[in-house]
Amino acid sequence: MSSQLDLDSILEFTINLALEAGELIRSGQQRRFSSESANEDEKANSVDLVTEVDKAVEDFITKKIKETYPDHQFIGEETFKGQKITDEPTWIDGTTNFIHGFPMVATSIGLAYSAAKGKGAYLNRKTKLPITGKSKPLQSLGRALIAVEYGSARSAPQLPSKVKTFQTLAGAPELGGKMCHSLRSMGSAALNIAAVASGGLDMYWEVGCWAWDVCAGICILREAGGVMFGPKTSTLSGDIDGDLLTGRKYLAVRGIAPTADETSLQVQQRFAKEFYDTTDDIEP
Amino acid sequence: MSSQLDLDSILEFTINLALEAGELIRSGQQRRFSSESANEDEKANSVDLVTEVDKAVEDFITKKIKETYPDHQFIGEETFKGQKITDEPTWIDGTTNFIHGFPMVATSIGLAYSAAKGKGAYLNRKTKLPITGKSKPLQSLGRALIAVEYGSARSAPQLPSKVKTFQTLAGAPELGGKMCHSLRSMGSAALNIAAVASGGLDMYWEVGCWAWDVCAGICILREAGGVMFGPKTSTLSGDIDGDLLTGRKYLAVRGIAPTADETSLQVQQRFAKEFYDTTDDIEP
Repeated sequence: MSSQLDLDSILEFTINLALEAGELIRSGQQRRFSSESANEDEKANSVDLVTEVDKAVEDFITKKIKETYPDHQFIGEETFKGQKITDEPTWIDGTTNFIHGFPMVATSIGLAYSAAKGKGAYLNRKTKLPITGKSKPLQSLGRALIAVEYGSARSAPQLPSKVKTFQTLAGAPELGGKMCHSLRSMGSAALNIAAVASGGLDMYWEVGCWAWDVCAGICILREAGGVMFGPKTSTLSGDIDGDLLTGRKYLAVRGIAPTADETSLQVQQRFAKEFYDTTDDIEP
Repeated sequence: MSSQLDLDSILEFTINLALEAGELIRSGQQRRFSSESANEDEKANSVDLVTEVDKAVEDFITKKIKETYPDHQFIGEETFKGQKITDEPTWIDGTTNFIHGFPMVATSIGLAYSAAKGKGAYLNRKTKLPITGKSKPLQSLGRALIAVEYGSARSAPQLPSKVKTFQTLAGAPELGGKMCHSLRSMGSAALNIAAVASGGLDMYWEVGCWAWDVCAGICILREAGGVMFGPKTSTLSGDIDGDLLTGRKYLAVRGIAPTADETSLQVQQRFAKEFYDTTDDIEP
């Protein structure tokens, strides 16, 4: 199905959509800040304006997509009821965080990053990813800079399991640790995946976020030579399908140069296995 | 002593210095990337170029400061031997991370942020901090977005103590947690402090970084209404002195609106005490 889509024109449409939506958000923030400075009732006012901008942006994006591609499917953060993702062209939209995507064509993070299947991933439409030009080697998990997030499940078993993994990743060998270079938490799945795609991060692990948080990022990651793996219990094939997209368990690995004995994918699978040995299989 | 300094001209000098050093770093990175793409022996080449650029930037900054302010003291990351910081004008320089400062005048993070004592803190010399215009309330630690870092001490007791604190901050009440909004780790003290100063983060806690990592940031933070506290065992006075600067234990709290019963500083001290109740007194 996707081979019959005009990805070039969809990419162009999506980038322009992101630019226009970004402008809506920017002007909304300006209004919010100046309103807060002028007004004593800061809190109510601020929340109202945020909601108003969010709603306006969501309506704008939905309307534009439905006008332009009336036959396409639509899965949104506000309307998701667990439906399966099919092979039909499907827009996956999570405007609350201004992250929106489409399985084969994607823009993310206010259009700094864009990609379309088979056409490469770019930063600001100019710099091809990874920004180092080609995939670099990765010597060991101890050399890796890894993004992790605390997520919204803050009780047992999720949070203690995650925190135990953070300690294993960061800890010295005498603590049974991998002593990775360090851990980062930027608070946005899209930002973390884009950083892995660009090569600034080596891996990103998350349990609990949603298809609309990762969908655009996965396209960018793949086009930059990276791989998105599913749960610890999966075959770690590197294939993208509906189960992976909606599975809520993700491990992104950047493009890595092949070794004498392994393809890039085999090196990526090896690091994914080693990473998953440090953690439980956590349910979201 | 500092009242006799022409802070306006020192700020101007420092901003220009940061701009010029930033240009050196940018062109160095360009050379590094193109060299890496062209060259098979990526690793050695890359490390050599990084070292070369670091050294050039450090020499450039040191030379410029000593030429312009020959009477000023100088404490550098490469030459630090535990000397006390006096009341004499002292430049505190950590060029390895391109963070450099001076107790009363500071630029940080490639000159996005600048401040001088009594003259306010600015983003890109235009937007006065905090970017919301004035200090906002903070309802509870549970509403706070807090930056933490893993640091370089990855054994016991440091790492397990830190990770235990992370779990207490993020965890739900049934885990004995504060369930703060979330935790962030951006990997740079300067970036974390600047984000607290701007109001994007509520707090930032670190044990183990150095005076040159926080010095410029403290000036920016103070001018934006924030406070940098020292160790858990200190009086949490909010005063800046040599002991605080070189103490390697830091807790930054953003500017917070006063309540009916408390000044801004009292609210900040209350949150600092509550924060420190979640953690051990960790030695760097």
